[in-house]
Amino acid sequence: MEIAQLVAVMPLSIGGDSHAEWRFVEHDEPLLSVRDLGATRGDGVFETIGVRRGAPQALEPHLERFSASARALDLPAPRIASWRAVILEACRRRADVTELAVKIVYTRGIEGSGMPTGWLLAVPCPDFTVERTEGIRIVTLDRGYRHDVTATSPWLLQGAKTLSYAVNTAALREATRRGADDVLFVSSDGIALEGPTSTLVYRRGDRLLTPASSLPILAGTTSAAVLDHAAELGLSTDHVVASVDEVIAADAAWLVSSIRMAAPIRSIDGVDLAVDPQLTSSFNERLLGRTT
Amino acid sequence: MEIAQLVAVMPLSIGGDSHAEWRFVEHDEPLLSVRDLGATRGDGVFETIGVRRGAPQALEPHLERFSASARALDLPAPRIASWRAVILEACRRRADVTELAVKIVYTRGIEGSGMPTGWLLAVPCPDFTVERTEGIRIVTLDRGYRHDVTATSPWLLQGAKTLSYAVNTAALREATRRGADDVLFVSSDGIALEGPTSTLVYRRGDRLLTPASSLPILAGTTSAAVLDHAAELGLSTDHVVASVDEVIAADAAWLVSSIRMAAPIRSIDGVDLAVDPQLTSSFNERLLGRTT
Repeated sequence: MEIAQLVAVMPLSIGGDSHAEWRFVEHDEPLLSVRDLGATRGDGVFETIGVRRGAPQALEPHLERFSASARALDLPAPRIASWRAVILEACRRRADVTELAVKIVYTRGIEGSGMPTGWLLAVPCPDFTVERTEGIRIVTLDRGYRHDVTATSPWLLQGAKTLSYAVNTAALREATRRGADDVLFVSSDGIALEGPTSTLVYRRGDRLLTPASSLPILAGTTSAAVLDHAAELGLSTDHVVASVDEVIAADAAWLVSSIRMAAPIRSIDGVDLAVDPQLTSSFNERLLGRTT
Repeated sequence: MEIAQLVAVMPLSIGGDSHAEWRFVEHDEPLLSVRDLGATRGDGVFETIGVRRGAPQALEPHLERFSASARALDLPAPRIASWRAVILEACRRRADVTELAVKIVYTRGIEGSGMPTGWLLAVPCPDFTVERTEGIRIVTLDRGYRHDVTATSPWLLQGAKTLSYAVNTAALREATRRGADDVLFVSSDGIALEGPTSTLVYRRGDRLLTPASSLPILAGTTSAAVLDHAAELGLSTDHVVASVDEVIAADAAWLVSSIRMAAPIRSIDGVDLAVDPQLTSSFNERLLGRTT
């Protein structure tokens, strides 16, 4: 099987702010040690950046979150100028791809070495037209945490995008078992949180709402772009702490993410939701039309 | 730096029940793809087996838990006879090492391949004499989950030993920040759970107690051996749901694990605990003297 992937491996010590020291690999060969703490402990952070015909979308918010995640894990600060340079170089080399996903990963490195490991992986995106237009059926799953757990227990790393995603993937398998496409995590005290790999956005009248950043969720880069666009359309926007019932009662709701973009929610736990095809198109056109 | 490690890589398709097809690697070379879901999602399971002069300890309980963890993650069932054979071969090749740690790892494999990845890593253990004799100072940290979360939310994978350990390592860093050596996780409703990489055991009078398996904890292989030994010594043993206060009021308490063995708890959150040097020695002599 030919793989249209591109990999770049971070040098052990980054001297400059260019991509010159990174090693680009076009073939699929083993690059990681089995002693890398990314592979043995899920001990690292990542970002996935959507790229449209060579233009990375929301690059700076992704890089800022990457740094924030590294800080939450007490990793050495990633050298952002070098990461930005290598991302732009990957985008340049794959500028012919309509929709590309660029994943950047930064781990605590080989156990005992004290040196982080980093790499970039660029792969063409699957076609998400159906999800973006016809929508998705989701189920709610209890995330086990109270809605205020971030304030009391920062070691749970709820604001960080870590490599420890086994629960996220288990939740998606549970959704499949229940005949659904995706998940909305709910706090143990009933507050709507986020999807395993997406952010919740919903409309009530002329308000576009998303869960507050005080909740145990990841600050969404795509939801931020959607809220900005909604404000330009004349909607008021807000970050809220709200129950699932309020989402079910919404005039429309979406799970938004960097690669699939805005996927309208057709049903939650078997209950049909109103869908807003016009606003959905507007969101996706705007998201796919970004040049930064 | 020379590394006394030994690595064996699982064949893509295991035909037999021997180690013949496994690839042994004595040098440190990259063996993993950056697209392995173990490295990008912490999506896999592991066990760490203590080996004393070539004799693996509690091998069958570890292999059983390995299978159970794989089942919890909906991974293809690991071919246990082949894993057992490769573990025994690694023990044979490193029979001169007094205390060896053998880690076995099994991931969902390269994304999209549908083929799991597996490897074994054998490394000499650090010297834990101080921890085993002088003990450890621990802090309690809120795990964020209610004590009954396993029953309601199996997708949180609380009974499985997964590669998604970022929270466990973050908790250990928090302990260091607080001037302690280790952590006892507590449920959001105050029930004593487990350490990030160990099981709690404590004595009250002539009873040796450990948290119940209904709790969101890993079933300990070392704690099972300790309880068996205690029963032989005439102590009664039980699995309980108990508050941290009951642990602090104990006559002695330990965090037990496969490599460090029984580490007596000297203090919890700065409160001194009674230590039982005689029972501690008895536990460690027994654990280190196991030949199976």
